[in-house]
Amino acid sequence: MPKAQTPRQMKLGLFMMAPGHHVAAWRQKDAQADLGANFRAYAQLARQAEAAKFDMIFLDDVVAVKDISADTGTRVARVAYFEPTTLLSGLAAVTERIGLVATASTTYSEPYALARRFASLDLISEGRAGWNLVTSNTEAEAKNFGSAGHPRHDHRYDRAEEFIDVVLGLWNSFADDAFRRDKESGIYFDHEKLRVLNHRGRHFSVRGPLNVARSPQGHTVIVQAGSSEPGKELAARTAEVVFTAQQTLADAQAFYADLKGRLARYGRREDQLKIMPGIFPVVGRTRAEAQAKFDELQELIHPAVGINLLSAMIGDFDLSQYPPDGPVPELPETNGGKSRQHLLFDLARKENLTIGQLARRIAGARGHWQVVGTAGDIADLLEERFLNGGADGFNIMPPTLPGGLTDFATLVLPELRRRGLFRTEYEGTTLREHLGLDVPRWQRQSASTSASTAAE
Amino acid sequence: MPKAQTPRQMKLGLFMMAPGHHVAAWRQKDAQADLGANFRAYAQLARQAEAAKFDMIFLDDVVAVKDISADTGTRVARVAYFEPTTLLSGLAAVTERIGLVATASTTYSEPYALARRFASLDLISEGRAGWNLVTSNTEAEAKNFGSAGHPRHDHRYDRAEEFIDVVLGLWNSFADDAFRRDKESGIYFDHEKLRVLNHRGRHFSVRGPLNVARSPQGHTVIVQAGSSEPGKELAARTAEVVFTAQQTLADAQAFYADLKGRLARYGRREDQLKIMPGIFPVVGRTRAEAQAKFDELQELIHPAVGINLLSAMIGDFDLSQYPPDGPVPELPETNGGKSRQHLLFDLARKENLTIGQLARRIAGARGHWQVVGTAGDIADLLEERFLNGGADGFNIMPPTLPGGLTDFATLVLPELRRRGLFRTEYEGTTLREHLGLDVPRWQRQSASTSASTAAE
Repeated sequence: MPKAQTPRQMKLGLFMMAPGHHVAAWRQKDAQADLGANFRAYAQLARQAEAAKFDMIFLDDVVAVKDISADTGTRVARVAYFEPTTLLSGLAAVTERIGLVATASTTYSEPYALARRFASLDLISEGRAGWNLVTSNTEAEAKNFGSAGHPRHDHRYDRAEEFIDVVLGLWNSFADDAFRRDKESGIYFDHEKLRVLNHRGRHFSVRGPLNVARSPQGHTVIVQAGSSEPGKELAARTAEVVFTAQQTLADAQAFYADLKGRLARYGRREDQLKIMPGIFPVVGRTRAEAQAKFDELQELIHPAVGINLLSAMIGDFDLSQYPPDGPVPELPETNGGKSRQHLLFDLARKENLTIGQLARRIAGARGHWQVVGTAGDIADLLEERFLNGGADGFNIMPPTLPGGLTDFATLVLPELRRRGLFRTEYEGTTLREHLGLDVPRWQRQSASTSASTAAE
Repeated sequence: MPKAQTPRQMKLGLFMMAPGHHVAAWRQKDAQADLGANFRAYAQLARQAEAAKFDMIFLDDVVAVKDISADTGTRVARVAYFEPTTLLSGLAAVTERIGLVATASTTYSEPYALARRFASLDLISEGRAGWNLVTSNTEAEAKNFGSAGHPRHDHRYDRAEEFIDVVLGLWNSFADDAFRRDKESGIYFDHEKLRVLNHRGRHFSVRGPLNVARSPQGHTVIVQAGSSEPGKELAARTAEVVFTAQQTLADAQAFYADLKGRLARYGRREDQLKIMPGIFPVVGRTRAEAQAKFDELQELIHPAVGINLLSAMIGDFDLSQYPPDGPVPELPETNGGKSRQHLLFDLARKENLTIGQLARRIAGARGHWQVVGTAGDIADLLEERFLNGGADGFNIMPPTLPGGLTDFATLVLPELRRRGLFRTEYEGTTLREHLGLDVPRWQRQSASTSASTAAE
């Protein structure tokens, strides 16, 4: 009997920032304020997310405490939390199906070490790992890695382009069936099924091979979030999932068409890249209840924390020197993440917001799409974007944890399922199977790095 | 009622090299040949080790495939395996008590990244992490990290000395009670309980603080294994556990007295450092059975693999160019690990071994103390060293897994317990509690790095 064709369904990630995406989340009465140091609580949330059939858990990362000031730094939970690859390795052991995506920086890692850690997570989880490639954008991180200053945006992307080629090359070290482990003959692996990278490039010289066996899903899924021009090109060439922040349907459609349109140049099909905008959903059984939840969180924001968060998000440009009830000033070119800067300035311009208003406005969703409403409202909006060329799925950013996850799982997901828009059971066991992504084949010669490699 | 004084008992680590310490272990019929890629099998072994009340699991590490040749490289299992900090994070989630010690290199890591990964493992495991500091000793590793060549031994130790100060300083970022998480006032942590490192030294410039909360055991236990002069000085200043390879009681006593004697110079007490020599025990219900097990493994060694392993262990000096039935030649000074070179040459000289004999001899224990006998034989020898100033405990290197672990746990441990030499239940929940180590106090000013730090 032929398998019934499933209609296209949306992919859903769960952004598990501890203890919730809203800057004041930790102060909310039911929030797990110590989540960044409480593995058992994280394990429970991961199992809850898996029971809800999310495609993946997503963890962002910064390799620094961004704000060490007494007045604002002490008022945020985003100061101490688990390192993502170790946390997800722990969560892999207490879950069976859900994908596990960790952020890691190409600016402050070495490709061999990073490739290896993700390959290991991918084996531990039996094919459920994803790597969200970031180039980092704060001076605080540079100061922890001995740099004279944070490298410039173009330099970071130049390094990232080569970095990912090395990582992909290392993940191509052993063929899927390389390990014979034949006790009788004494041959552990087939030498013909080993590829030694021998990469020599501008930034890196890496011989290989990687000392980790190939994952059941071929290799770790490549995730990216950059929306700058070099970010989009890198994504078009290499990303399999793109997280993005889009405020309106029109913006989402434009971004979607732009990025999908770039794929053909790299010989890729549109379905090889899933575009998943973020959404910060505040869900209530009624609109009034949702609004009350949101207002409660907004009330908990300390004004200086909001402006500090905004300053950090536009590339460490200190806005506290401007009047909070005045307009957002024209800013000089900074060295931070371009995507967020553009996003925030567009928002301020469009809605004519003061610094204080913009700060409060972004303190929850941090520039992402923010929706306050009922399950029906939210399902309507997700469906609209999903069916009209705006998204292949969404990255859900619960305002608080565990409350925001419970709200989404118990109110919005049943509504999406009623509409046939989201799965009731996992399609397979690996992250690639959930997302409908190809399993990359092992290549005897890796095309992507051939230009920059040389025989030993 | 005063607690009864427990007599001094030995500490026991379990060296979980996949799939056993013997170079031909994977070929043995019951060995878990795919252990290096099989998390479920590792999880089962970890639970077995915990049920046996081992103090800790120990994982070594090399950030390369050392031998990529078709003739010998394909015949060993030590080619692909999990990255230790991710594997132990997974194992932390499926165990409750056993300590988790991972090897990581100071030569091929950045201190902020390493400090953070171990701090994260330490929180995930609720205070059970240990870091075995190595400086690495192979050219293969240098080639994966863009180095022109492997740094010299003295340079590696110079970097390691500063590296560990930075790591200890970063682990001292937040006081144990820094995180108030007071929802009412909105204060997440007490600024007075934060120490910013501001380290500027010869090798590293690291501002800090670390973005991970302090562990329930203060910080990760520091483990080392270097036996060279700089290795012993680094251990005397900073190590809390030292693994070492000692062939005879006299050697073990000399090493023990030497290292413990160095502690006072650094203001440390003798009980702040546990010395745990390795032992490769081949256990049988009779001596004949033990010998038969050993012979079976030795028969499985491919001659070229043995000589290749020996060549690698003495610092990548190729012995295959010499006749295998001839004497071990005088070797030039190499850039490898000094401890192992001395150890192996002493062994060859003492027992007048040919290259082939030495190769076969070290293929199991890799230079460590090798004992083939009954549970009584092995308990006698362990007891002798333990009671006569040779050891605080031992690092058990099972010839094969799971067989070698099962043999030790079911035959030797009951014998040690009958003699009152090993625990029947864990004393506490953290690795420091198992080992009887002090919990380091948070220091507002960290003495160890004060000389090389400067205010911002």
